[in-house]
Amino acid sequence: MNQYAAMNRMELQAEYDRLQEAYRAFQARGLKLDMSRGRPGADQLDISTDILDVKEYIAPNGFDCRNYGMPHGVHELAEIFAQMMEVPVDTVVLGGASSLNMMFDKVADAMVHGVGGGAPWLLQGGIKFLCPAPGYDRHFAICEYFNIEMITIPMTESGPDMDMVERLVSADEKIKGIWCVPKYSNPQGITYSDETVRRFATLKPAAKDFRIFWDNAYCVHHISDTPDRLLPLYDECLKNGTEDMVIMYASTSKITLPGAGVAAMATSPKNQAWDRKRTGTQRVCPDKMNMMRHLAYLKDFDGLMAKMADHARLLRPKFDALCTKLEAEFGGSGLLHWHRPNGGYFVSVDTLPGCAKRVVELCAQGGVKLTGAGATYPYKKDPQDTNIRLAPTGIGMPELTEATELFCICVKLASAERVLAE
Amino acid sequence: MNQYAAMNRMELQAEYDRLQEAYRAFQARGLKLDMSRGRPGADQLDISTDILDVKEYIAPNGFDCRNYGMPHGVHELAEIFAQMMEVPVDTVVLGGASSLNMMFDKVADAMVHGVGGGAPWLLQGGIKFLCPAPGYDRHFAICEYFNIEMITIPMTESGPDMDMVERLVSADEKIKGIWCVPKYSNPQGITYSDETVRRFATLKPAAKDFRIFWDNAYCVHHISDTPDRLLPLYDECLKNGTEDMVIMYASTSKITLPGAGVAAMATSPKNQAWDRKRTGTQRVCPDKMNMMRHLAYLKDFDGLMAKMADHARLLRPKFDALCTKLEAEFGGSGLLHWHRPNGGYFVSVDTLPGCAKRVVELCAQGGVKLTGAGATYPYKKDPQDTNIRLAPTGIGMPELTEATELFCICVKLASAERVLAE
Repeated sequence: MNQYAAMNRMELQAEYDRLQEAYRAFQARGLKLDMSRGRPGADQLDISTDILDVKEYIAPNGFDCRNYGMPHGVHELAEIFAQMMEVPVDTVVLGGASSLNMMFDKVADAMVHGVGGGAPWLLQGGIKFLCPAPGYDRHFAICEYFNIEMITIPMTESGPDMDMVERLVSADEKIKGIWCVPKYSNPQGITYSDETVRRFATLKPAAKDFRIFWDNAYCVHHISDTPDRLLPLYDECLKNGTEDMVIMYASTSKITLPGAGVAAMATSPKNQAWDRKRTGTQRVCPDKMNMMRHLAYLKDFDGLMAKMADHARLLRPKFDALCTKLEAEFGGSGLLHWHRPNGGYFVSVDTLPGCAKRVVELCAQGGVKLTGAGATYPYKKDPQDTNIRLAPTGIGMPELTEATELFCICVKLASAERVLAE
Repeated sequence: MNQYAAMNRMELQAEYDRLQEAYRAFQARGLKLDMSRGRPGADQLDISTDILDVKEYIAPNGFDCRNYGMPHGVHELAEIFAQMMEVPVDTVVLGGASSLNMMFDKVADAMVHGVGGGAPWLLQGGIKFLCPAPGYDRHFAICEYFNIEMITIPMTESGPDMDMVERLVSADEKIKGIWCVPKYSNPQGITYSDETVRRFATLKPAAKDFRIFWDNAYCVHHISDTPDRLLPLYDECLKNGTEDMVIMYASTSKITLPGAGVAAMATSPKNQAWDRKRTGTQRVCPDKMNMMRHLAYLKDFDGLMAKMADHARLLRPKFDALCTKLEAEFGGSGLLHWHRPNGGYFVSVDTLPGCAKRVVELCAQGGVKLTGAGATYPYKKDPQDTNIRLAPTGIGMPELTEATELFCICVKLASAERVLAE
């Protein structure tokens, strides 16, 4: 039983009145803060701004990157991605500035040209994707855009509910894909267990053109001294001969400068051949100058990890402050549940059923914008209306302290309203 | 009658023997030159390399471009594009580094989502595009990739054969698009006449979802002191209420650094709304750092035109040398025809029928790579086998002189072979 349900009506009404007062006091402050998206803070941008000092344009192989050509990009940057994504270097395909764009283009291409020799998804009709949820809203938006039916897969502490995933993909050949953020998942910060990864590598989909979209967006984005470890999926797939089933993604957007980084895909030779047929028609060459900028700036994988340690130093106090405050306000209360992540960009919380929308609304009216309630679920429909994604990274520490305080008041207010209404 | 046809057999055989000897002498030089693509020369890259000095990242509106956000990009750069493309600024949509990518994505999207409320092109089936030819091989490659049937439209001195264009688009609702490079066309360097532009603005296509793909790649790429003038199509469309029918493209790839520039589209508000639905799903934001780099470097349209004058100073001697040599070797001979362009990146030549492939082959064996014969036609099939695209920009002057000399020998050789075989 939660703390409020255990109170008698008079006690709870008194608590509610007290919270209302605190809330109104917050409103009077006229805050205007945004915790809705996983953006780096200005301090994080500052530590990467010297990437603008780079002036190298001759690639290690002697190619002048100022001109057209070199359609596969700068190989030495692919080597850094290979270490980052824990894949063989020959699986890496460099892209433009956005990994989301690479995922979108892959789905768009599958609609018209099919996947691995299969018929175009648009002509097959009735295509479905599995969507572990809570998950990343922009993945779900791609499905909505292409009218792909989304099936929600509950998340567990060790990743998606694999019993359900296995059962569904083996039974339904209309299921063509699954969106995964396997490490420090968006939004919960969960890292898939070894068993989960192995079960992904041994999936037996009914559809030959089924693909795992493995968005390893936070593969090196640790905030803790005891980072999570993700079993490399590609190696497991190689053991099982299932490497054509997986397409992996990563980018430097939260390593150097968001929106101006380099994105990459890692996939099997067969999938690459299919991809290169498209990219060879889609553009003359990628932006190799930006690749050179990143190569000269990061130098190698060690250089990249040193940069990530700098980010972690700036991010850790924010996650600590947020989680410590949540623990202090809600520990043992039963009003709020969360997972303290070792990396990534979010803290995902679950309110009492039916409270998330109201909390987000109260926060907005108090001057703090959160990710829309429901956004972490397909069709923006959180069945229990409990999940809220908090993004503590984009604002400064003093603002975060204020925003967290308001958030705690709003959770309590919404919870009290809910219990009072019962 | 051409010069060789006018010779008697003995004279022609002597000429042939002389050419063979000259050709073998060339082969002995072991040249290895590439005139196959429209690349800027190293000297052109040098004049733009100081774009790497730019460190500005705060947009004129105060936005910190180092972070996510600002999905439509840097407005002040759109203003430069508006002047460059001669369109109202509110028609400009900024993209990534490649205008080809924007065109590809537009066609890809039309396949799945249709255009302007029409059914998806893939579901309509049997879609066709009109392809003025000789034209740009990468446009044709997009059609091939999407299995869009290409109908060749002959080019005239004033642009595509508009009688044929009008007749076809008004009669066949399967015709959904036409590829145009309206100024300094690729490869002929022809600029569409005012009448041609006006006829485009008043096209009455049977298909409501017909679009003119107006690739204004060379809009400011003059090489002559007497540049061509292209009537602005968008204005003409506004007069006729046909502005939804046209989508225009340009980029800075041949203004700053190829492959690392900024691309833009210009189109009507309705077409933009359709486009933004896609791009809002496809990526978080464009690479605004590269936009800031270009804005701070070019400053304004005058700055851009000053840069183009610098390019022209480097390009003019190359075009002059090539055309002067062609005139000296072939003037009045009837063996080769060409148009001396006032801008762009190519000189397009026409050999005697049935000789283009052979000339390209002879040049390759002599150490000079040309654009594949036929590449300037849909399905790479030049019906008369006459057209060759010469790209004199990517190599230095001494190399260009050598390559041109070889080219002239090869044209004569192939012509002589041909006449001797008759």
